[in-house]
Amino acid sequence: MVADLDQSRLASIAVNQPWIKTTTDFYDILNSDVDGVVIAAPVRAHYRLAKEALLHDKHVLVEKPLTASVAEAEELIELARERNLILMVGHTFEYSPAVNELRKLVQNGDLGKIYCVEAERVNLGLFRSDINVIWDLAPHDVSILLYLFGKTPERVKVQANAHLQSHIADIAHLDLEFADQMTAHIHVSWLHPCKIRRVTVIGDARMVVYDDTNPSEMIKVYNKGADVHADPVVSYRYGAITIPHIDWVEPLRLECEDFVNSIRTGNPPRANGEVGLAVVRVLEAAQLALEKQEAINTAVTVQ
Amino acid sequence: MVADLDQSRLASIAVNQPWIKTTTDFYDILNSDVDGVVIAAPVRAHYRLAKEALLHDKHVLVEKPLTASVAEAEELIELARERNLILMVGHTFEYSPAVNELRKLVQNGDLGKIYCVEAERVNLGLFRSDINVIWDLAPHDVSILLYLFGKTPERVKVQANAHLQSHIADIAHLDLEFADQMTAHIHVSWLHPCKIRRVTVIGDARMVVYDDTNPSEMIKVYNKGADVHADPVVSYRYGAITIPHIDWVEPLRLECEDFVNSIRTGNPPRANGEVGLAVVRVLEAAQLALEKQEAINTAVTVQ
Amino acid sequence: MVADLDQSRLASIAVNQPWIKTTTDFYDILNSDVDGVVIAAPVRAHYRLAKEALLHDKHVLVEKPLTASVAEAEELIELARERNLILMVGHTFEYSPAVNELRKLVQNGDLGKIYCVEAERVNLGLFRSDINVIWDLAPHDVSILLYLFGKTPERVKVQANAHLQSHIADIAHLDLEFADQMTAHIHVSWLHPCKIRRVTVIGDARMVVYDDTNPSEMIKVYNKGADVHADPVVSYRYGAITIPHIDWVEPLRLECEDFVNSIRTGNPPRANGEVGLAVVRVLEAAQLALEKQEAINTAVTVQ
Amino acid sequence: MVADLDQSRLASIAVNQPWIKTTTDFYDILNSDVDGVVIAAPVRAHYRLAKEALLHDKHVLVEKPLTASVAEAEELIELARERNLILMVGHTFEYSPAVNELRKLVQNGDLGKIYCVEAERVNLGLFRSDINVIWDLAPHDVSILLYLFGKTPERVKVQANAHLQSHIADIAHLDLEFADQMTAHIHVSWLHPCKIRRVTVIGDARMVVYDDTNPSEMIKVYNKGADVHADPVVSYRYGAITIPHIDWVEPLRLECEDFVNSIRTGNPPRANGEVGLAVVRVLEAAQLALEKQEAINTAVTVQ
Repeated sequence: MVADLDQSRLASIAVNQPWIKTTTDFYDILNSDVDGVVIAAPVRAHYRLAKEALLHDKHVLVEKPLTASVAEAEELIELARERNLILMVGHTFEYSPAVNELRKLVQNGDLGKIYCVEAERVNLGLFRSDINVIWDLAPHDVSILLYLFGKTPERVKVQANAHLQSHIADIAHLDLEFADQMTAHIHVSWLHPCKIRRVTVIGDARMVVYDDTNPSEMIKVYNKGADVHADPVVSYRYGAITIPHIDWVEPLRLECEDFVNSIRTGNPPRANGEVGLAVVRVLEAAQLALEKQEAINTAVTVQ
Repeated sequence: MVADLDQSRLASIAVNQPWIKTTTDFYDILNSDVDGVVIAAPVRAHYRLAKEALLHDKHVLVEKPLTASVAEAEELIELARERNLILMVGHTFEYSPAVNELRKLVQNGDLGKIYCVEAERVNLGLFRSDINVIWDLAPHDVSILLYLFGKTPERVKVQANAHLQSHIADIAHLDLEFADQMTAHIHVSWLHPCKIRRVTVIGDARMVVYDDTNPSEMIKVYNKGADVHADPVVSYRYGAITIPHIDWVEPLRLECEDFVNSIRTGNPPRANGEVGLAVVRVLEAAQLALEKQEAINTAVTVQ
Repeated sequence: MVADLDQSRLASIAVNQPWIKTTTDFYDILNSDVDGVVIAAPVRAHYRLAKEALLHDKHVLVEKPLTASVAEAEELIELARERNLILMVGHTFEYSPAVNELRKLVQNGDLGKIYCVEAERVNLGLFRSDINVIWDLAPHDVSILLYLFGKTPERVKVQANAHLQSHIADIAHLDLEFADQMTAHIHVSWLHPCKIRRVTVIGDARMVVYDDTNPSEMIKVYNKGADVHADPVVSYRYGAITIPHIDWVEPLRLECEDFVNSIRTGNPPRANGEVGLAVVRVLEAAQLALEKQEAINTAVTVQ
Repeated sequence: MVADLDQSRLASIAVNQPWIKTTTDFYDILNSDVDGVVIAAPVRAHYRLAKEALLHDKHVLVEKPLTASVAEAEELIELARERNLILMVGHTFEYSPAVNELRKLVQNGDLGKIYCVEAERVNLGLFRSDINVIWDLAPHDVSILLYLFGKTPERVKVQANAHLQSHIADIAHLDLEFADQMTAHIHVSWLHPCKIRRVTVIGDARMVVYDDTNPSEMIKVYNKGADVHADPVVSYRYGAITIPHIDWVEPLRLECEDFVNSIRTGNPPRANGEVGLAVVRVLEAAQLALEKQEAINTAVTVQ
């Protein structure tokens, strides 16, 4: 069953997938006997809709980001726990076989100590008027970073500009500082001629480029690096590039299966509420950093 | 005639270009009858060597950046003016036919109002121990920006990290603010698996990618953009991509010819001392921004 | 309604598209009140199935190639004409917006006189045991060529080899000669590490590369060429490369719409039976050229 | 010392490399005390110039192809043997580190049984009026093939066309048959919008693409393939792609060093006269195949 306030979307469903019930009233779904609800709505509506669904004892999968604030996310998590329901967030990239290949390389030590990460997610559009480009695009990169490294940034700085719409940043550069001197730079933009979806992870043993737009070479492992023997003498290593074969399964399919399996088994999904909260915590800090134009400790945003 | 303290380099010249005189004493050149001197030395030695050359009435071409400080650059400019000598800096990219093609597109209005620029200049190495990556690589991008737009940034912010050598930043992100809300982001790094040399200029009419590593498609003009009619409604334009043919001449050759012609005619070269000073002004502000971790007005650095 | 002898496929449809009727008996469809039938079956079964459908007064869309021989195609065309039914072949690329952009460039004279075409359609697999790589892949390129230039080759030569399966060529090079000295070379292969889908059209005024695997740069127009002024003095022209924007619509969708519209209006579809026959004529000549190892006039194969 | 009939070339040398003696008389070199002579001249002049040099007891390095006919090559080889002189041909690619990396992969069995090779060497120009595109460009690919596999083709077929100049083929496709069912296809052209320099080697265990225009990824090893278990069932293997690091040294430099070393030691160079002859044998057969339009046994051309 699908609920939408937009009649034309419901009409399209009626033509193309006539076996799906449609309604303009969200409560028709909540009052039905479905087990789980998927919420794809403006970010600021996530909290209210998810809360209603949980209060009607539905398992919930919310599109990213989980909520528009840390406080909202914490409340949803608490509510789901009380009522023993699944709360999941649509961090689709955590289900990408490419991201999981990269995570394996990070976690088995192949890359050595990680120096830094450069993430880029840019192209022309789609401009949104309800949230800025950080809340729109950066959830993907932040969720990938947290998933890859299993740790959360300690400090966030932001440089952003609003070129097209007043007060809605459309280009942003985020600098994240993690423990152990690891840093990450995230560049998100709605205003760029090319579609770039790239994450570069730089370790002292190997470096990896993950390019989501290149299906046949998504993960490229560069066995190269620089070593300081006796400061300031630097030497360089140049080895082979390896492009592992990735058995591709559509990440969205895996995400949906995880939701269904979690409902069936009661086990938490990979992208559970806590995972969604961790990303919102970074986004909220980034928003504050943007507004104050200073570095923000991510802990600051938590009471 | 070539002067170098390193005997092995002189020996190599003796074998391969036996008609060139060599010496370990810089003053042998200054006391000879050559008209002009080219200085390729550590940045901190630029000022002293250039000053000596000017004092010996030689025209001078100094490798980029012109000097290690604004004060040094100003003194050299004054000295050259007094003695009626050519002072030039090796901003090679200002002589690149690709950069000049891009400049033409900017200046004839083809790109419309410029929103922002993204510059990337990264690869593995070469690490230097006398200067950080900003002073090593950013002079290229800053000189390109100043040359393209004919204006200097008003404020600079820097995010940089020293991963390999202590206290010598090897990765840096610079944010520059210009008049008319134009911004530029420069990413320079000695620690990256790929060689990237790319400048993306985003105008409201067209966008351009200048990729210096792709000889057959150095300049790509994207006739696309987004327009806000009635905020918040954004519409998109998608047109053709054009790759102009560029008659290639080696930029270094053109730079050297400009130096020789300037000596012959007395006309200032394109990359004259003032141009070199403008770049050093930005670099000095960037260094201050890095040390203080705050935004620096470029005017601050000038007395 | 879908008919298939494979029960597992029907089961999958029953799960995923439960509103579609399924059957193992093709005649259930022919005896139903549907207007048109789409035949996706082994090539050697095309003729028999299409004929039965026409005899049951169904309009017919057959997957490429139309039939396994010229005689079969001619019979189907005649039958459809007699019964006033639509006969169409699934030459999907004739509906590709990129191919149509290229066709426009050819037909409005932008490319000048066409010297030759180089077509490549290679990757690993899918090996078939019922037909060789020529009958499997070359129908696409032949149909594109005929559609682009509106003329049929006069002579065909083939060089092919069977590496994996005995007697079933898996790599083939076809040389086609057209009127006015235009030539085309088609390379098809099931045994290649990369997926290549490229057609290069070389005119005396401009040259075009159509790369079906590069969604953002499918058509690249090179304004370059060579001119002979006084033999043997050759001069070269080098101009811009232009990548037109293509409004993409899925070719398969357009193909299906053409079938439906033809049924509704009675007007012949773009890829009608005659078009299908022209391609089969070339394939049959190519098969003969392969077997005899000599050049074959395409007219030879027609009685 | 350089001899050239073109005074302007000699003048340019006089300016840029003033320590080199110049002459318009080839015999000035032959009568000097130089040990070796390098011949870069029109192909049809190779034989005469090389013979004169050998008769003056000079070691000789001739640009590719060695001569314009098998008979000429055989005579030069015999003459060099009699006078105990080095005869070498400028097969530069046999000195390429990339080609040698590929050769190692072929010869150590990593690729398994070799099915076939696809070679492409195309771009716009340079049209020549003394020889066709086969004699101009194919020597590179033929010498690479012979060097990689250590065997010579048994049969040659050619499809070629002369588009710009009458009677001088500017596009050609060569089909070579080797022992053990190995085949090779060579596509050479002066009439193509892109510069392509690519050799694809397809083995039953692995496949390799050697792309001479991509400095950072010249050799790409694809660990993939297809296997026939019980005909006609084909299965597919998909593994990693590996791009070995290649320590680059300019091939022309290595070629010149080999010539000098051979003169010093008396040991034959890698690209010796016999190697040059083997390539000319294939070219002569290809020329015959082009003229007769039939397959030619390479042995036919040798009496």
